[in-house]
Amino acid sequence: MPKPEIRFCSQCGGPVRLRVPEGDNLPRHVCERCGFIHYQNPKIVTGCIPEHEGRVLLCRRAIEPRYGLWTLPAGFMENDETVAEAAARETLEEARAHVRDLELYAVFSLPHINQVYVMYRGRLDPPEFAPGAESLEVRLMHETEIPWEALAFPVIAETLRRYFADRRAGRFGVHEAALVPTADRSGFVVR
Amino acid sequence: MPKPEIRFCSQCGGPVRLRVPEGDNLPRHVCERCGFIHYQNPKIVTGCIPEHEGRVLLCRRAIEPRYGLWTLPAGFMENDETVAEAAARETLEEARAHVRDLELYAVFSLPHINQVYVMYRGRLDPPEFAPGAESLEVRLMHETEIPWEALAFPVIAETLRRYFADRRAGRFGVHEAALVPTADRSGFVVR
Repeated sequence: MPKPEIRFCSQCGGPVRLRVPEGDNLPRHVCERCGFIHYQNPKIVTGCIPEHEGRVLLCRRAIEPRYGLWTLPAGFMENDETVAEAAARETLEEARAHVRDLELYAVFSLPHINQVYVMYRGRLDPPEFAPGAESLEVRLMHETEIPWEALAFPVIAETLRRYFADRRAGRFGVHEAALVPTADRSGFVVR
Repeated sequence: MPKPEIRFCSQCGGPVRLRVPEGDNLPRHVCERCGFIHYQNPKIVTGCIPEHEGRVLLCRRAIEPRYGLWTLPAGFMENDETVAEAAARETLEEARAHVRDLELYAVFSLPHINQVYVMYRGRLDPPEFAPGAESLEVRLMHETEIPWEALAFPVIAETLRRYFADRRAGRFGVHEAALVPTADRSGFVVR
């Protein structure tokens, strides 16, 4: 998912060229008319592992990409909110569920798509849920019920693998890692 | 630091208007000519607490804002890097120092400026450093030497307070919080 090229200046509508600004060391989209520099930076995707009596809440996607596959409630963080607020908002939007007592669980860098995932654990309270507009179905699952072969994204599989390993070990850590595609793009390396 | 208003479309140069796109629930900058939606999202600032024999490395800023005040090496995460790589890069740029074995230390939301700080601890190795282009001075400090009244940003003070409290307690946690200005803007609330 490469960022769309910037062709025109957001400030003056002038033509934009990719060049290294003075005092910088990376090429940026710089306006040739007014000089405005258009920086592009990674985006935060944040979400939650909603917990209830040993089960976790998963959503089946009603949107592309990965229509029909399972995921944890998560989405792009917006301006004017905290990361935890964004994770709770996404859970409410996608699973019509309220989560409380959010605890940071994982920070995953996905440099090939310029995203950083920030995942929380949260107590489902009340234990009620329903598919939001972007979900076909929402379901509480035990570890044995997780559809490992039908998860939407590698980062979600990694989150759930670590979560259940931690739970078996009786202690939840806070995880930090990068998920990088293998050279042949057939899989991912966690580092 | 409000985001600059988007007045022209980055794709076609057409006029942009703030409105709620169909299926969305927040106003976005939408092109009136080609319909392109210009999303704006929080940015990640990442940095490091470089550690060496009980001391930490601070930089005195050679740039605005907060010229002349002290900070930890930190800056905007770029595309095509992991968060930890960005934290190490900023440390190299601002303090000409190499850090190893980075451990996630804190995630702080600053919703009033649409930033999320991701801070690491890292071992200074080798224990060498020098001011980078954006620093006037770089210094290893014991807790008693920290210039609490001359720190550049509240989030840096919060990071260092928690760091030294953890060290006294003999255990480093991973911290998550939001720093929000008080109603009268005279200070910050941590929540």
